[in-house]
Amino acid sequence: MIADGKYLTALWYDGESESVLYIDQTLLPHQLIIRKMITFEDGLRAIRWLEVRGAPLIGVAGAFALWLGMRESAGRGAPEERFNTLAERLLATRPTAINLARGIRELKHDLHSETLLLQRAITFREEEIERCRRIGMNGVPIIRALAHKKSDGVVNILTHCNAGWLACVDYGTALAPIYLAHNEGIKVHVWVDETRPLNQGSRLTAYELKEHGVPCTVITDNAGGLLMQRGEVDLVIVGADRITRNGDVANKTGTYLKALAAFDNGIPFYVAAPETTFDYELETGSQVPIEERHGNELQVETPDVAVRNPAFDITPARLITGYLTDKQTL
Amino acid sequence: MIADGKYLTALWYDGESESVLYIDQTLLPHQLIIRKMITFEDGLRAIRWLEVRGAPLIGVAGAFALWLGMRESAGRGAPEERFNTLAERLLATRPTAINLARGIRELKHDLHSETLLLQRAITFREEEIERCRRIGMNGVPIIRALAHKKSDGVVNILTHCNAGWLACVDYGTALAPIYLAHNEGIKVHVWVDETRPLNQGSRLTAYELKEHGVPCTVITDNAGGLLMQRGEVDLVIVGADRITRNGDVANKTGTYLKALAAFDNGIPFYVAAPETTFDYELETGSQVPIEERHGNELQVETPDVAVRNPAFDITPARLITGYLTDKQTL
Repeated sequence: MIADGKYLTALWYDGESESVLYIDQTLLPHQLIIRKMITFEDGLRAIRWLEVRGAPLIGVAGAFALWLGMRESAGRGAPEERFNTLAERLLATRPTAINLARGIRELKHDLHSETLLLQRAITFREEEIERCRRIGMNGVPIIRALAHKKSDGVVNILTHCNAGWLACVDYGTALAPIYLAHNEGIKVHVWVDETRPLNQGSRLTAYELKEHGVPCTVITDNAGGLLMQRGEVDLVIVGADRITRNGDVANKTGTYLKALAAFDNGIPFYVAAPETTFDYELETGSQVPIEERHGNELQVETPDVAVRNPAFDITPARLITGYLTDKQTL
Repeated sequence: MIADGKYLTALWYDGESESVLYIDQTLLPHQLIIRKMITFEDGLRAIRWLEVRGAPLIGVAGAFALWLGMRESAGRGAPEERFNTLAERLLATRPTAINLARGIRELKHDLHSETLLLQRAITFREEEIERCRRIGMNGVPIIRALAHKKSDGVVNILTHCNAGWLACVDYGTALAPIYLAHNEGIKVHVWVDETRPLNQGSRLTAYELKEHGVPCTVITDNAGGLLMQRGEVDLVIVGADRITRNGDVANKTGTYLKALAAFDNGIPFYVAAPETTFDYELETGSQVPIEERHGNELQVETPDVAVRNPAFDITPARLITGYLTDKQTL
């Protein structure tokens, strides 16, 4: 999508330097800095420190990091052992999203050739972009239908966290239908949840939408319920970090609260995710490990007070109107 | 209650200086500064800038401000006219809480004597303190009963915003039962919602509880749903800015989302408020004016992005387990 007036993606392979380039998302929206990932440790650090974040993107970044790790350890021990050690360290960084495991799975059959590993990572990235584009295509008819029903033609869509192109290499998941609808002239306006404690909404989603020219308004995570009560929200679309067999969705904490409010007010609530986000090995959301992050992310002003900071919650399938995937709309 | 090792209330009349003293809540938790309200404009500013905030407290502060205004305008026009002009300006500062209107009503029959006005404001303050103490007494049995059911005896109570002694001169509304339960040795632990955008939870509630020695943990406004899903919340108690005839509650934005989550997880959800918070002239919550505050309170990092900042939402009566009032538990 467009940022700083140019077409950009969140992460790509740079053939010239034989390394991986990515946007450091911790510096947005103030600075658009492209960083280089040269070693496995670079990749691990980028994921752990949230320089790259968003479920699909960390899957792709993890695949490239694995390739880097295999390249730098080449000749030092059996490939299977090296691969497993690297994979284990990667998985430990962010336990909730399934995509790291998926990125690892993508590479696991090619571990005897670094060239094949790189090729596989590159293809995986391209496939994720295409999956996001298809999510967008599948979501546009829902937005178009709502636009026809509105007297002013403007569809007000609420989203939580950042599930845009920054989270997904390109297009995004939740934002993909919004970008494509906007591009084809449907009037959309996005309510952007601030998304505490790391403000991915007010820092990243607002930045993304503004750079691409999509009208949006930032609100606190607390405000969405009132806006729904007052008829100011037509549709909610969020991304997902993991979707279990029964349709439960693990996503950024607070998603569940918005789903409850949408349900209570009869507003359609869609989860947008590529097929790579579905975890067919877990039956329900209660089995998903929830990442607990450090309390200092909240920057609590009262000194010496305990802080709990769970990064995700579970939205039960019963609250979800539908799933926008790359295959179809379920 | 106790802060900085001493017994303090949020606002009181100082006979020596014939003025009103109050804690400037915009500087907490960093500095505990006592300010003096000498003129009506001082009072207006203190309320508008949230130096005093919390529904019961602004009612009391408004009553004292009215007295100051009548004193300084004495002899310049008919008392009724002066009173009405002052009352109108006061009401315009914070439209959602009913308590300013109640504070005005308390004084309106004594407007021919500044001495009587002052006496009435002093009595109103004392009555509000007593009402809060009774709310606490009425709430303790609920906490005690939950403590008996817990294997570790610890009752985990979630609260939103600040409805403690800072919001109410003394004791608080939502926090009154918690303070009294703690004082009589019942083990309580409070989940403190950060309460964006002004962080009344992490700045004021956490400060209050910590100073008084009540165990507490700050969480984002997004996290309460997950904690409820995981069985880590036994009870929710919040305050109220206005309660309509049908039992709907206007309170800090985000309250509605917590009520939905409590209802969805079968957790008791209580609203604690003195009789002065009930508005018998409005039938339902949809009639309550919702204060829209300035977007700069969110401190959004992405430049030039629109912001909406509604300060309250409506929790429908159907989601509320009960009301803790100074009269009884309903």
